[in-house]
Amino acid sequence: MAQRLAYLGPPGTFSEQAAIKFSPGAQHVPFPTITAVASAVMTGMAEEGIVPIENSLEGSVPETLDLLISEGTLHIRQEVMLPIEHCLLARPDTTPQEVQVIFSHPQALGQCRRFLERCFPKAQLVASLSTVAAVQEMKGASAPSAAIAPGRAAELYGTAVLARGVQDHPNNVTRFVVLATNDHPRTGQDRTSLCFSFADDRPGLLYGVIGEFSRRGINLAKVESRPTKESLGRYIFLIDIDGHREDPLVKEALEAVGKQASVLRVFGSYPRSKA
Amino acid sequence: MAQRLAYLGPPGTFSEQAAIKFSPGAQHVPFPTITAVASAVMTGMAEEGIVPIENSLEGSVPETLDLLISEGTLHIRQEVMLPIEHCLLARPDTTPQEVQVIFSHPQALGQCRRFLERCFPKAQLVASLSTVAAVQEMKGASAPSAAIAPGRAAELYGTAVLARGVQDHPNNVTRFVVLATNDHPRTGQDRTSLCFSFADDRPGLLYGVIGEFSRRGINLAKVESRPTKESLGRYIFLIDIDGHREDPLVKEALEAVGKQASVLRVFGSYPRSKA
Repeated sequence: MAQRLAYLGPPGTFSEQAAIKFSPGAQHVPFPTITAVASAVMTGMAEEGIVPIENSLEGSVPETLDLLISEGTLHIRQEVMLPIEHCLLARPDTTPQEVQVIFSHPQALGQCRRFLERCFPKAQLVASLSTVAAVQEMKGASAPSAAIAPGRAAELYGTAVLARGVQDHPNNVTRFVVLATNDHPRTGQDRTSLCFSFADDRPGLLYGVIGEFSRRGINLAKVESRPTKESLGRYIFLIDIDGHREDPLVKEALEAVGKQASVLRVFGSYPRSKA
Repeated sequence: MAQRLAYLGPPGTFSEQAAIKFSPGAQHVPFPTITAVASAVMTGMAEEGIVPIENSLEGSVPETLDLLISEGTLHIRQEVMLPIEHCLLARPDTTPQEVQVIFSHPQALGQCRRFLERCFPKAQLVASLSTVAAVQEMKGASAPSAAIAPGRAAELYGTAVLARGVQDHPNNVTRFVVLATNDHPRTGQDRTSLCFSFADDRPGLLYGVIGEFSRRGINLAKVESRPTKESLGRYIFLIDIDGHREDPLVKEALEAVGKQASVLRVFGSYPRSKA
């Protein structure tokens, strides 16, 4: 039986594209929310689940970060980079000149604002709950319409592609992570993601932790602080470092950090994505 | 003439609530996007502009961070914390039992998912471009409808409030910043926001910068890295520190950081918000 890979559905989303890119032969199982994808992995409905964690324009996906922080049994096993290409889809009989209404999720409409202003200044923009819902609403609309959605949705829902790459920023990339109950064995080209927090708020605590990595020549790729759910003023720090948690120096640094932080959780070590 | 305060409109948004909280006597001028609020300040259409920068559940607002990074003439003069209370609004003649359709921005629907599942399991959820657009669509709908929106929208658009505080998480707070061409004079209880980046990616660069603050006993409240627009792998670091840029130790630290970073930009110093 093929490995089951849960993803943020429905079919046609960028998450499905990432699932296909990561593991074309797996059985791809759609779930309605990021939390549901995580539950599918934790309960054994799927061996792995793929969820977005960061977009080059929009920043981090808080729902994914919060799941990693709170669910001790979830680990990151892989990362997958997917260039985001928005397309303008329409029914096969609709020409660009006719389009009066354009459907999409507000975030996708926002990422294509300049394209829409230039090419469809008079079109009415209508919000949808997702880009895939936008395609379905476009198909059922009475006025000539279009939808901003992934190109994959055109194949699945039998629509034409009027235009490709309609996003305003050329470097729109989403990083996905593959969640599983275990992380990845060492490959020598790895990355490790973790979070930590402190019981109090003294100057120098974060510095002390970063020093454990810096002193050992471990590069720190990404740093982020998330407000704890209790209040805006207190933070959990999330970092990505180069190396595997079983590399001797990384292991040593993590042990030292564990003594300074009140909470330390290693989300996992996984091969660095090339693209 | 009253001071003009630009905000992310239309009237009825949480940004308008923050503008009223910050400066009830100012002339509040709505602009359609965060970028437009910034332009209003830079071009003199308004003396100040208020925009969201961070929400306790959703994380940072990338559009605001990117503006601060790229627009050297914009500074942070104040911060304002606003508790986010979503309300369920309806026409005065609609009872909760009748509601068949609920309109809102997908993010607001997401923040109230549990409430909606419990109290309106059969209602159809419909996406809108904003919470204020949702109120207008609800008012014009043929089926008995409701909208998730700020309570302020009920006053402005003549609707009833069926329920208050319908968000799932109790600690939903948005931090706004007031943008101006100058930051705030020293008060003794200040915060400073800045960003920096490095020309290369060697281990220890971030550590070196954080050390300049740590060594001088300057507390670091928030750290974040934003991907540069060029690629996902390269980052700009954004931090908040306690103190004013004219405090002698902060000034000294900033000078030292300026020598290590390839780019250093101080967004401004401003009084710390109490709530």
